[in-house]
Amino acid sequence: MMLENIPTLKDIQDAAERLTGIAHNTPILANSTIDKLYECKILFKCENFQKVGAFKFRGAYNAVASLPKEKLEKGVVTHSSGNHAAALTLAAKLNQTEAFIVMPNTAPELKKKAVKSYGAEITFCEPTLKSREETAQKIIDKTGAELIHPFNNYSIIAGQATAAMELINDYGKLDYILAPVGGGGLLSGTSLSANYLSPKTKVIGCEPEGADDAFCSLRDGKIYPSENPQTICDGLLTSLGEKTFNIIQKYVEDIITVDDEQIINAMRLIWERMKIIVEPSSAVPLAVVMNNKNMFEDKLIGIILSGGNVDLNKLPF
Amino acid sequence: MMLENIPTLKDIQDAAERLTGIAHNTPILANSTIDKLYECKILFKCENFQKVGAFKFRGAYNAVASLPKEKLEKGVVTHSSGNHAAALTLAAKLNQTEAFIVMPNTAPELKKKAVKSYGAEITFCEPTLKSREETAQKIIDKTGAELIHPFNNYSIIAGQATAAMELINDYGKLDYILAPVGGGGLLSGTSLSANYLSPKTKVIGCEPEGADDAFCSLRDGKIYPSENPQTICDGLLTSLGEKTFNIIQKYVEDIITVDDEQIINAMRLIWERMKIIVEPSSAVPLAVVMNNKNMFEDKLIGIILSGGNVDLNKLPF
Repeated sequence: MMLENIPTLKDIQDAAERLTGIAHNTPILANSTIDKLYECKILFKCENFQKVGAFKFRGAYNAVASLPKEKLEKGVVTHSSGNHAAALTLAAKLNQTEAFIVMPNTAPELKKKAVKSYGAEITFCEPTLKSREETAQKIIDKTGAELIHPFNNYSIIAGQATAAMELINDYGKLDYILAPVGGGGLLSGTSLSANYLSPKTKVIGCEPEGADDAFCSLRDGKIYPSENPQTICDGLLTSLGEKTFNIIQKYVEDIITVDDEQIINAMRLIWERMKIIVEPSSAVPLAVVMNNKNMFEDKLIGIILSGGNVDLNKLPF
Repeated sequence: MMLENIPTLKDIQDAAERLTGIAHNTPILANSTIDKLYECKILFKCENFQKVGAFKFRGAYNAVASLPKEKLEKGVVTHSSGNHAAALTLAAKLNQTEAFIVMPNTAPELKKKAVKSYGAEITFCEPTLKSREETAQKIIDKTGAELIHPFNNYSIIAGQATAAMELINDYGKLDYILAPVGGGGLLSGTSLSANYLSPKTKVIGCEPEGADDAFCSLRDGKIYPSENPQTICDGLLTSLGEKTFNIIQKYVEDIITVDDEQIINAMRLIWERMKIIVEPSSAVPLAVVMNNKNMFEDKLIGIILSGGNVDLNKLPF
């Protein structure tokens, strides 16, 4: 597998440089009650407090700001209905260019509203991958805008890697870093930062049982598409990309799955004890700790809380 | 009115000293979206992240730790079903003594459970003030335990004052500090810290319209009892005490009321934009800003977010 073009430490440091003063160096919180319950020490990197409410802003901003001027001024495009769309829109605005967002006409009103609120130009399409890709291609043909994939893009991966870099810079040698895995942008970036800065830290991907394509892909050494995923974690529905998969194969220790009931319990524990709002995807790593107590006993663990965008009218508890 | 025994700057500094390393020096958060919406700059002092999830721990710990040894070892007692009961229980435990909590048998299960989880000995009584006071007195007669009133107590007031002191120490000259008012412990303490450390900062009490006894008391110069209060703010149902009223009369600029719909809107804005969990009482000051935009335009405002203890099964949205 080709790994020669993957982000280097310098690429991640450059991303961090670009993000300085623009993205939040998010707080790292601990909670003594949770530590006592699971007999370990957990440091939560709060990307739910990041701009647009998710780590996605790091990668999107890095990708947009890395574009050469002549590309940048033609705008950026993506097909996504989630946090990446909002992140890319804000990143485009901050770089004085335009974001074209392709979104399935079935996307929830709340997400349409969120992306619109950041000033995106939204084009609606049918809710199929084919329609999404065709619609994006039409925009590219017309405008020359650059397609920014939500995860299968090295600038995105380098940007996401900066969250773990901040965690390691602040807390040194962690035994584990746990991150949720959907398309793998956060997980692959996290594993690169750990590899470069704290090679003894083991990086674990955390995935819902009902969307365990990454788990199966790592086990069998080939990318499985995410087919009909069934989970409350709306941020973790996609399958891995080739770029993220190659990095994960090499640098991630393991992927562990948990079911939605465990994820909801973990989410509730974070809300009740830490008084912070996280989306279901963010709670997957804590659910993994709760469900594998022996493995994590007495360990120093970093958890990336990936985001906090939830519909308060549709809470699972 | 007697003001000669009110907490001095030294008393507040002593309280801060006692709390060092025990209470959290809670984070101060800002949110650019909220600032833009209301054209001001707001600094939120996050007492929802305080131990037991509310500022009450400051006062309770200070009161318990200030007791002379011979009193301390006999324990402490209070009649409260809310945050003060949990705070006093934890404060007692940390000072190696016992907390006796008198609670009406009608208190919600969640609150009984929370107080129990901190290790209190709970005595249930009828849901009347008479029954509460009699039950507490019986415990005092039997054990010699010290009654720690939730707010009408100078050690409590000095402890609560440390939140505003931290805010002022970190951010200097604020135009306003806004705090919710129930019994007035937090508001009176806040006004003392402002008076001593930043006398040009105006302190505003923020109260639900459906429980406007403090507003009426300040207007008419006499304490009105809180009769049949109707508000979602379960932390703000009590009337002022003589000690808190005297301080508020002298050092608080004004009390402003808002209705529950405005409070719920403010609470939702904090949850959605700041990704933190606050209880309804905490949202009253932001509701006051939202409802009095002209008054606060271009001002630097400190808001004490008093607590984050909500029943996730009974959210108002």
